[in-house]
Amino acid sequence: MREVAIVGLGIEPVGEHWDLSLRELAGNAALSALEEIQVDQIDGLIVGNMMSGTANHQQQLGAYIADWIGMPMAEAFRVEAACSSGAAAFRAGLMAVSSGELDSALVVAVEKMTDSPASEISSELATAADADWEMEQGVSFVGLNALIMKRYMEEYGWKKEDFAGFSINAHKNGVNNPNARFRKAISKEIYMKSSMVAPPINLMDASPVGDGAAALILLPAETAKQYFPHSTLISVIASATATDSIAVHDRFDPLWLQGAESSSKKAYQQAGLSPGEIDIFELHDAFSIMAALSLEASGFVERGKAPTLAKEEEIGIHGRIPIATMGGLKARGHPVGATGMYQLVEVVQQLRGTAGLNQVPGARIGMAQNIGGSGSNIYTHILKRMK
Amino acid sequence: MREVAIVGLGIEPVGEHWDLSLRELAGNAALSALEEIQVDQIDGLIVGNMMSGTANHQQQLGAYIADWIGMPMAEAFRVEAACSSGAAAFRAGLMAVSSGELDSALVVAVEKMTDSPASEISSELATAADADWEMEQGVSFVGLNALIMKRYMEEYGWKKEDFAGFSINAHKNGVNNPNARFRKAISKEIYMKSSMVAPPINLMDASPVGDGAAALILLPAETAKQYFPHSTLISVIASATATDSIAVHDRFDPLWLQGAESSSKKAYQQAGLSPGEIDIFELHDAFSIMAALSLEASGFVERGKAPTLAKEEEIGIHGRIPIATMGGLKARGHPVGATGMYQLVEVVQQLRGTAGLNQVPGARIGMAQNIGGSGSNIYTHILKRMK
Repeated sequence: MREVAIVGLGIEPVGEHWDLSLRELAGNAALSALEEIQVDQIDGLIVGNMMSGTANHQQQLGAYIADWIGMPMAEAFRVEAACSSGAAAFRAGLMAVSSGELDSALVVAVEKMTDSPASEISSELATAADADWEMEQGVSFVGLNALIMKRYMEEYGWKKEDFAGFSINAHKNGVNNPNARFRKAISKEIYMKSSMVAPPINLMDASPVGDGAAALILLPAETAKQYFPHSTLISVIASATATDSIAVHDRFDPLWLQGAESSSKKAYQQAGLSPGEIDIFELHDAFSIMAALSLEASGFVERGKAPTLAKEEEIGIHGRIPIATMGGLKARGHPVGATGMYQLVEVVQQLRGTAGLNQVPGARIGMAQNIGGSGSNIYTHILKRMK
Repeated sequence: MREVAIVGLGIEPVGEHWDLSLRELAGNAALSALEEIQVDQIDGLIVGNMMSGTANHQQQLGAYIADWIGMPMAEAFRVEAACSSGAAAFRAGLMAVSSGELDSALVVAVEKMTDSPASEISSELATAADADWEMEQGVSFVGLNALIMKRYMEEYGWKKEDFAGFSINAHKNGVNNPNARFRKAISKEIYMKSSMVAPPINLMDASPVGDGAAALILLPAETAKQYFPHSTLISVIASATATDSIAVHDRFDPLWLQGAESSSKKAYQQAGLSPGEIDIFELHDAFSIMAALSLEASGFVERGKAPTLAKEEEIGIHGRIPIATMGGLKARGHPVGATGMYQLVEVVQQLRGTAGLNQVPGARIGMAQNIGGSGSNIYTHILKRMK
């Protein structure tokens, strides 16, 4: 298999894009990526998206977006893996290029959620869980995470306030990211006093949905070096994924993300690295509890101890293992099927040294972990600056 | 890239499966394929599906089905490309195995449509077209095909009755296929007198939707030969795809499937074959007019002349180029996102010599072509018996 490099990047701010259609939003990100490398034709377009069939009454996004951006007769398809659709699409593009089947791939992930009523979006998000055995009980996605967080607090003896540091860090980093949905810092007091959504999860534990699109272009590393000798190329040094039971009640341990452990272990092995060698970690903090579980299962802290990391010297930009460096799902926002690509784009920004005021000094190796459902499908990628 | 062989096959009858859930339907096909080769773990599961998010209120089908059939910690994702989702999933599985990223892949495509009201399904099918510029006009998918058929008849001087042979052939072949939704032969008189749906398309020009699932297992050819020395192995000798404009009105010629021409030409080139060397052709006869356009763009007959093939000596089991050998979309049925995999499974049955009363004598090379939308995404695969 060929080594693959990332050469072009496009990103739209997460927000309420009333003035952009689904195709314009995705098209803008895709065209920015193409413009960066000054080409107008790529062999294949892989689209990550979860809910356009309902939220936008539009499927067939591969051909739809290829048509819109003027990529005639290309390969194009959509990949869906709920909230991990973005990373799943990236991995599909990676396999296509590493296999030699395609010589270039444009991966764009898009979600346009704010045209639909919130009740519809809630019910659509629930399709990522088990419709027959979880949703039938009336539990929503926030509800499932609330049950997990409650159990975590009970089992390991943590209080709600011990999770505050995750949200404070994310919001602090969101301030300086022009693509973040929320750009306002929060205090521990704001965290504690925020409106309850599903106890113990309040608004400051939950990431906001939104409209967004992010894109990356993949080339064989050899080709990339030849055509872009002066660019900072980013190599994909690990790509791994693992599924778990779709329903949380079917897990041996509802407090352990087996898919995160399994995919991160595979990724470390592929890259020949240990967690201590990762410079930044873009994790899937859809809820504070998911940030905690992701850190534990990926080997950054032992089981039940994640809240000990919820402080600046650990996870801040200058901390031991910076997370959510551009605001994370919590502050940058969570346009569900696009989130995995936002994470990867942000890792690329950090490794290129273009993360602005949020730049992690000397970042050379970055990891992104995208969680689908309640951990039923987890993707871990490790990227490395090539020089 | 490694040569890839097909070693396991599973298929469920197309019908109204009130007694099977989505996961049972997909699971049955997947488990049959696994049972054939007597294994219970495969590296990756790729699911083809178009509309489970709405029709079944369930997304994340990769993890969902992997969980159901007991494939823990596997790779799993869903591929969507409207009515070509089945072939798109197959191709994604093929790339994963040919690249060496996976050492085995199970591809299962599923659609469960009959639990939903017909009006909902019609509106869901329309998401394969252009929501903003086609659907807004109130045109349905049948309507679009009716406009194309009308224009074809006008442009080339054919009458409706000239298309009868396509439906007669499909229904004749459906009789002997235990997995077909309709197993009743029709006459030219029945064809002509059938209820009109959208002139000139009547019920006998239109394929029936339905519930269904079909699965195949892919291994590197070398592994397959080693483990299954006595089996009839089928090699994938060509896999190609191409997109076209999503809206029919954006095409240079609405009567020409550019995606079929482009993907079939690439496929012939990969296989080193010409159309005359193809023993059977499973085409996408969602409507009679699509069978005609597919035959023309794939090089089996010249432009505007497809109705000359609509007779037994041309397209029948013992004809020059047998099509819809197991009933096609018209009689076997069209569970949209699963159809591409039904076509491939049927080609495998023919090449293995297990097509029963519909066996095409001595079939060694078979082609399948799966059309998404109104031709916005077309996949062409060529399979060959290995010995």
